[in-house]
Amino acid sequence: MKYCKNFYQIKANDEIFSKLKAERETAEVGYYQLPYQDLTQIKNHAKSVTKSHIVVVGIGGSSLGAKAIYEFLLLSNSYQKDLLFLETTAPLEINHCLKKIDLNDAHFVVISKSGNTIETISLFKYLDGLVKIDKSNCTIISQKNSKLTDFANANNIKSFALAENIGGRFSVFSEVGLVPLAMVGVDIENLLNGAKRVAESFFEKGDYYQPIIEKARFLVENKHRFNINAIFSYCTSLESFNKWYVQLWAESLGKININRTRQAFTPIALIGPVDQHSFLQLIIDGVRDKTVTFIKIDDLKDNTKIPNSTPDLGLDYVDGLSFDQLLNAQADATIAAVKAQKDIPYDVVTISTADEYNIAKLMFIYQLLVSAIGQFLQINTYDQPGVEHGKQILAKQLKEK
Amino acid sequence: MKYCKNFYQIKANDEIFSKLKAERETAEVGYYQLPYQDLTQIKNHAKSVTKSHIVVVGIGGSSLGAKAIYEFLLLSNSYQKDLLFLETTAPLEINHCLKKIDLNDAHFVVISKSGNTIETISLFKYLDGLVKIDKSNCTIISQKNSKLTDFANANNIKSFALAENIGGRFSVFSEVGLVPLAMVGVDIENLLNGAKRVAESFFEKGDYYQPIIEKARFLVENKHRFNINAIFSYCTSLESFNKWYVQLWAESLGKININRTRQAFTPIALIGPVDQHSFLQLIIDGVRDKTVTFIKIDDLKDNTKIPNSTPDLGLDYVDGLSFDQLLNAQADATIAAVKAQKDIPYDVVTISTADEYNIAKLMFIYQLLVSAIGQFLQINTYDQPGVEHGKQILAKQLKEK
Repeated sequence: MKYCKNFYQIKANDEIFSKLKAERETAEVGYYQLPYQDLTQIKNHAKSVTKSHIVVVGIGGSSLGAKAIYEFLLLSNSYQKDLLFLETTAPLEINHCLKKIDLNDAHFVVISKSGNTIETISLFKYLDGLVKIDKSNCTIISQKNSKLTDFANANNIKSFALAENIGGRFSVFSEVGLVPLAMVGVDIENLLNGAKRVAESFFEKGDYYQPIIEKARFLVENKHRFNINAIFSYCTSLESFNKWYVQLWAESLGKININRTRQAFTPIALIGPVDQHSFLQLIIDGVRDKTVTFIKIDDLKDNTKIPNSTPDLGLDYVDGLSFDQLLNAQADATIAAVKAQKDIPYDVVTISTADEYNIAKLMFIYQLLVSAIGQFLQINTYDQPGVEHGKQILAKQLKEK
Repeated sequence: MKYCKNFYQIKANDEIFSKLKAERETAEVGYYQLPYQDLTQIKNHAKSVTKSHIVVVGIGGSSLGAKAIYEFLLLSNSYQKDLLFLETTAPLEINHCLKKIDLNDAHFVVISKSGNTIETISLFKYLDGLVKIDKSNCTIISQKNSKLTDFANANNIKSFALAENIGGRFSVFSEVGLVPLAMVGVDIENLLNGAKRVAESFFEKGDYYQPIIEKARFLVENKHRFNINAIFSYCTSLESFNKWYVQLWAESLGKININRTRQAFTPIALIGPVDQHSFLQLIIDGVRDKTVTFIKIDDLKDNTKIPNSTPDLGLDYVDGLSFDQLLNAQADATIAAVKAQKDIPYDVVTISTADEYNIAKLMFIYQLLVSAIGQFLQINTYDQPGVEHGKQILAKQLKEK
């Protein structure tokens, strides 16, 4: 009999760092290289699209990233075209989304890495029954040899080939995010600059190295005590970013590791100030099973103000304040209340302003953080074997009908 | 020296049941009686409102319940008036909401139990700077002696007095939910019928008694093992219900109990099929720290269909299906995949159709479930001391400015 086992244990920071570098250098994981891609083709194609409505047909990793960036940027920017997302099979949502637009003035960006995502293909088929879909109003983003790419080729529809080594939840800086964002006029070069700033700093052990590696280590060392990680984002424009974070965190870190042990960090996404009237009670008085990350935006570039002279309603100290000031004061007060508890681990990310550069930095930091945690946990951060079984059951069920 | 202590322990079901009955009979907790209220005044006032847009100005418990019901009902109903919610201090959201409507054709329902909720009062002051607010376009819902009720009285604005013994998150069947819903044309009588059906069954130990009390007991007995409770709702129309659930669960159950021990169940709210591409991986392969409740709707009363003849995109077995069928097949497949794991505690709530009666039943069940869990945990389910400190810090900060 022979038996040999090196049970899972937390490695030294430097060992994790070398493993992440190896992921990048062997191109085992593709997202690290995305900040350095050539944007010419994407930009040219985006320029050629003249329709007013850009409709992304895609679900999960194929829509969450672009949606997060677009909604965040709407805070301080306006675009001539609008960006919509058809992502679910709920009929009311489909009809609600399509009612908003003139289908003849819409360009559809159909995104599915595998090319056979059931929601996306069903929606595509439905759309094709409503309006003729051809090279004049469609762009396809999929893997090289998928059924969807074949369809694009057969119909002369412009397609972008997705790299095999980039999974949906790490694809926001690939064609998946950049093509639709470029079409509405987002500065995708500046997005990549933000991502590059973080990537370079991390891999050259610059200013972003310590915060990321140390946070990953803290979370892993305390994973049994704090199995829940909440982000508390001020304000609503970060709601889609929150959803992107939940997918990234949940689908990457909910895994069985090399030692056959179940691993998990459970993400919670909160929005301030609304969730001060809800979840905050649980954070303050509940069991200490959560870490909290606050995200706030310094300058909302908005001057909507509460008037100086107001009816007699009390709370005179808000008179003359801008909502921007009030929102940030609420964030600061909540942070102070959490701090005062003295035993809730928290950190604060302050974004200077709502532009491409800053949201890209935030998202790239989160991707690196998840990659680092995954290495500490000794899991495969980039696959999702747990969602396959349900898909097989569904296909079997529907075929039998 | 004298020392006496009866440490916290889980009581017998019957003891919990008597305690809940006592809560109801002594009117210590007011929501149990709401199904039996007289609706005449609310209905008459609602009829008198002729504006096209009903705008609820309120946050947390003052908006989540009505929003949950309204969005759910939109699945199978349409209303001549629309219902909007002004709930946050994020300036973009405020302007985005107000841009949608003609302010002169809007009726504002301003809701704050205390009458000094900072978000609500700030929004009210802001609105008053945009459009003259008076008895012709405003209804106020607040406690008897609040500053807000005083304002209503001084200006001849119709007001409803909120009972002291009904907290925000248990107020959906009080004036807080019913007044705005009645104004847009929701059948509030049928809502109360649904609530009554559940209340009577529970307190007479009918068919709803066992499922509620047993679920509460299971959760409490296993609270250290399963500290997270996820609801997985099919479909998007339950998104606001999900948020209502999160508030109800988090703010009621995140407490320090009579034995000075921190208690908590952490709610997670998921939407299918979107979160199959995200959180499902964590449920299937992650640590077994979650219970899951699936919510699905049998009949969406929608016949949006994938055409029978479609372009060559594969997945032929979806051709000719309605999205309604596809959505429910997805729910069933996900449930089957979770069941196949054999060690994830889950239950399934199937709603027959999207009407007032059914959503009220669902919400009343959840309120009773939370009350029962609270009794098992020996906490005060109905207060929220943990959110007060942040409010004090904010007021101090703003006064100093």
